[in-house]
Amino acid sequence: MAEKFASDRNLKFLLHEVFHVERLTEFEYYSDHSRETFDLALDTAFKISKNLLHPNLQEMDKNPPTFINGKVQVHPVVKEFIRECGTGGWIAANSSYELDGQQLPFTVTSACHFIFGAANYSASVYPLLMYGAAHLIESFGSEDLKREFIPRILSGEWQGTMALTEPQAGSSLGDIRTQAMPTDQNYYLIRGQKIFISAGDHDAVENIVHLMLARIKGAPSGAKGISLFVVPKKRIDATGNLVSNDVNVSALYHKLGYRGAPIVQLSLGESEDCRGYLVGEPNKGLSYMFQMMNEARLEVGLGAAAIASAAYHASLEYAKERRQGRKIMEKNPDSEPVRIIEHSDVRRMLLFQRAVVEGSLSLVLQCCLYSDLAHVRTGDLKERYNMLLDLLTPAAKTYPSEMGVISVSQGLQCLGGYGFCDEFPLEQFYRDIRIHPIHEGSTGIQGIDLLGRKVVMNNGKAFMLFIEEVNDTINAAHDKQDLEPYAERLQNAINSLKEVTFGLMRVGSSGKIENFLADATLYLELFGIVAVAWQWLKQGVSAWNLMKDSESETDKAFYSGKLMTMKYFFHYELPKTSGLVERLSENDGLTVSLDERFFSD
Amino acid sequence: MAEKFASDRNLKFLLHEVFHVERLTEFEYYSDHSRETFDLALDTAFKISKNLLHPNLQEMDKNPPTFINGKVQVHPVVKEFIRECGTGGWIAANSSYELDGQQLPFTVTSACHFIFGAANYSASVYPLLMYGAAHLIESFGSEDLKREFIPRILSGEWQGTMALTEPQAGSSLGDIRTQAMPTDQNYYLIRGQKIFISAGDHDAVENIVHLMLARIKGAPSGAKGISLFVVPKKRIDATGNLVSNDVNVSALYHKLGYRGAPIVQLSLGESEDCRGYLVGEPNKGLSYMFQMMNEARLEVGLGAAAIASAAYHASLEYAKERRQGRKIMEKNPDSEPVRIIEHSDVRRMLLFQRAVVEGSLSLVLQCCLYSDLAHVRTGDLKERYNMLLDLLTPAAKTYPSEMGVISVSQGLQCLGGYGFCDEFPLEQFYRDIRIHPIHEGSTGIQGIDLLGRKVVMNNGKAFMLFIEEVNDTINAAHDKQDLEPYAERLQNAINSLKEVTFGLMRVGSSGKIENFLADATLYLELFGIVAVAWQWLKQGVSAWNLMKDSESETDKAFYSGKLMTMKYFFHYELPKTSGLVERLSENDGLTVSLDERFFSD
Repeated sequence: MAEKFASDRNLKFLLHEVFHVERLTEFEYYSDHSRETFDLALDTAFKISKNLLHPNLQEMDKNPPTFINGKVQVHPVVKEFIRECGTGGWIAANSSYELDGQQLPFTVTSACHFIFGAANYSASVYPLLMYGAAHLIESFGSEDLKREFIPRILSGEWQGTMALTEPQAGSSLGDIRTQAMPTDQNYYLIRGQKIFISAGDHDAVENIVHLMLARIKGAPSGAKGISLFVVPKKRIDATGNLVSNDVNVSALYHKLGYRGAPIVQLSLGESEDCRGYLVGEPNKGLSYMFQMMNEARLEVGLGAAAIASAAYHASLEYAKERRQGRKIMEKNPDSEPVRIIEHSDVRRMLLFQRAVVEGSLSLVLQCCLYSDLAHVRTGDLKERYNMLLDLLTPAAKTYPSEMGVISVSQGLQCLGGYGFCDEFPLEQFYRDIRIHPIHEGSTGIQGIDLLGRKVVMNNGKAFMLFIEEVNDTINAAHDKQDLEPYAERLQNAINSLKEVTFGLMRVGSSGKIENFLADATLYLELFGIVAVAWQWLKQGVSAWNLMKDSESETDKAFYSGKLMTMKYFFHYELPKTSGLVERLSENDGLTVSLDERFFSD
Repeated sequence: MAEKFASDRNLKFLLHEVFHVERLTEFEYYSDHSRETFDLALDTAFKISKNLLHPNLQEMDKNPPTFINGKVQVHPVVKEFIRECGTGGWIAANSSYELDGQQLPFTVTSACHFIFGAANYSASVYPLLMYGAAHLIESFGSEDLKREFIPRILSGEWQGTMALTEPQAGSSLGDIRTQAMPTDQNYYLIRGQKIFISAGDHDAVENIVHLMLARIKGAPSGAKGISLFVVPKKRIDATGNLVSNDVNVSALYHKLGYRGAPIVQLSLGESEDCRGYLVGEPNKGLSYMFQMMNEARLEVGLGAAAIASAAYHASLEYAKERRQGRKIMEKNPDSEPVRIIEHSDVRRMLLFQRAVVEGSLSLVLQCCLYSDLAHVRTGDLKERYNMLLDLLTPAAKTYPSEMGVISVSQGLQCLGGYGFCDEFPLEQFYRDIRIHPIHEGSTGIQGIDLLGRKVVMNNGKAFMLFIEEVNDTINAAHDKQDLEPYAERLQNAINSLKEVTFGLMRVGSSGKIENFLADATLYLELFGIVAVAWQWLKQGVSAWNLMKDSESETDKAFYSGKLMTMKYFFHYELPKTSGLVERLSENDGLTVSLDERFFSD
């Protein structure tokens, strides 16, 4: 089993040397914190990961949750980890002091969750769902709901979930049918079915609290008639005891990977006794839920980068040890075989993985930083950061997910036949990460969200803000000789992205909406590559500045590695935009006009 | 479970309407055959696949081989299939009448093996290994070896294998150490270890015959000292009984996929009693083995295309049934959701899969046809076809394997969350196909083979022949109005490929061999896309000609579907060459000069 799953040095480089997260402590909300408290959080996350999560990675995969007599049982380490998260304040780390939280920046806690996810992705999901559910109640729930649910969720006693999907409504949330019947009490009677609910039931907690979308009887059709409810598995009765709330597990999914977390199908109100508590106003559920979904989307991107990180380090370790073949110019068959890291093709596969992992992580942390800045800023600046966050979220979810799948696959490839066998962890990472392009809005949905909603919102304002941010980085690179060619390459890429975007917008405003969105997935791919190229140039600028003044050989090697990986990205990954630009400039609606009979054989 | 796994119509289109395989019957060797006997073979392959192989696909995955008390046990259906292959003449289908074979063209039997592989890839491998082993003995073995082994292998009584890899020598065959000690009898004493041996031991046959590479004591170091041996698990003693030949299974691998076939580790000669029979001359083993390896490489490409075919049809079936969401212009939330095949992005994913599957299959069959033509031709023409086959084999192995992995992944994506669950077969296909970029020479090895050996051999003659073949297709398309733009695109792509190739050759001849080969994998990727674009234009020309004269609506829809998929390939896949050309023109040796310390954190 590979020892290393994430680079502490890289995390600290990103937090302190690229994003200067310490500057957040100048704001009142974060003022109790310092570089030391941030680093302590990271160090503790590493400790828990090394002692508890990583040693149980394969164990949890080989012993997935069971579903017997209506009960879902998970690996015992889940309980231990959740207890650790509750007592250690991990679930409430971002929450305010009022909620007994720690007021840590999202950027810092995300770095910690990256560590957890790299050590054991399945385990890392439980506390994230708890925080998301509590945060949703905090934002939109009544005082009663807050009092009853938030402390128990943030302490890890109760699991939170997001319960959206239904059999007939996967990506199409407007079609959900779960019904909420008003009563003359403070609750609605819920009836329906939910599918694909992560951590939707298990025995590591006392209770499960579903943040659930349902339709109040008589509500308008479609997305405008959806409300948000708190639906616990057990409710507290008049005497203060937990009693059944008529929420039953009807099935447990058997999955390709991500096997340490139970994904279940729920049946609600079979005995007409499932109570749901309305959150906020009726029919506004979908807009509330987007808060949790957007957080979850960043977390999915983060989780994908984390799994890809573990795969990268496992394959790097193997490549540094495994001897096989010789350098091409070595003709003596009796010479000792070299370690495979000496072969150019293996180096390329390692650089590819590193470029994807560290570029993805950088993009996600950039979004987290915008979120933190939006939290403490007001007025125009708040709006600016929120718009940047909104715009970048689809890319921060998708680039790590889609490229992470390929990155892990390259990691597996580095091990040859061994990569295909379960003696090494690569085959598990390959299975685990495949969920990421699917959950929390599939790649296709993210593409439409980016092009059809985010890019065009406010007359393209968010998009123009993004260009500004990229230009700032380009300008910072321009006066640095080694970086100049890369600044230029990014400038060209940004120009192409702008042209493509404006071209597509013209198609859209001509009324050909289907044509406009037909290749939205490719647009997202293009956008993602450019966004990550930006992050790499940003990292390059920091590394270049720091290397100049550095005396330590270790630091110099680290910064050189950063610059090398940046170069790799610009020489091998950025050119992939050329083909995408070509295709996205054609606007021929090839997939729109297609006759379905052509698929008949 | 999806019903359809391969398109009969497409196979017949390729065999008869694109490759005109019937023309082979004009040659003496194939003269007993006709379109009818070819179609009968296909129909029978479908029948066996539907009745025996496909129904056991998931069953064999869920019940992989076991290794108990030194014995490897496989699913009972394996025995049934091997018996069917033996009695039905499938193993000997390509063999000559002298060997009780059927003298069927490789092109036709490969089409049949595509069907088997699409129905159940793991099962399909057993007879292929049998034929490969028998063919190797036929080509290079003594009369005694032929008499003793070939009939029993071709009848399916004995399993054949290729036993190459050793713990210290994966891709580097020159490093194998298994020793062969000469005796004064007709055998050598073998001692050593072999790993990753497919079908290396199992209970569905009476005996296992390893075609094994070993080093005769005192032989030169490296690849020049490797000899080929027949090493049976059991040998026939003086009284005609089968007795142990001191070949023992030391481990069975637990694999990500491809679980219906046992891959084992072998220990040879632990009791100093393992006899090996030399094939051909000493120290020529590697060149002999290349015959089996090259056949196996085409079969790997074929198998990858086959799995991707099954995934494509499963996702197509789902997309035609599953209702979800509405067309973008539909604003009424009460309207019925559409089947997801109506969404452009899903169509794109389906077209992508179809383009990969049918383009890959076409490229592999093209190679098989060259092989058949080389078989019946003499002199310059024989040389021509052999050179084309040699040149195209790395691409025919790799394009289907690498793109097949992505294609299956897109198939899985079409099913959303269900694709990740084992209720549907996609997750299995995703696991099964991942072996293909690894076995029979990983993608990195294929890249070096293509650029470092095949492209430069005979002063680039094979490469120029390939250009000629592509130009023939371009010329055939030029006078057809609808095809003209695609002929032009292919012409441009071929020009770029030529420029890149000559540029790289200049780097090579300047002595910078490491730089020359550093991006050989990317060169192979570029070459593969261009080769498949050529196959698509070829299919387009046939479809266009046939559609002109067709009266049948079904045929017209089929040919239109072909043209549509060709267009998809040129609009979405061929543009990917732009980025590759950019990168391959840089020649900066970025991965060559890299300091390994840069990977220290």
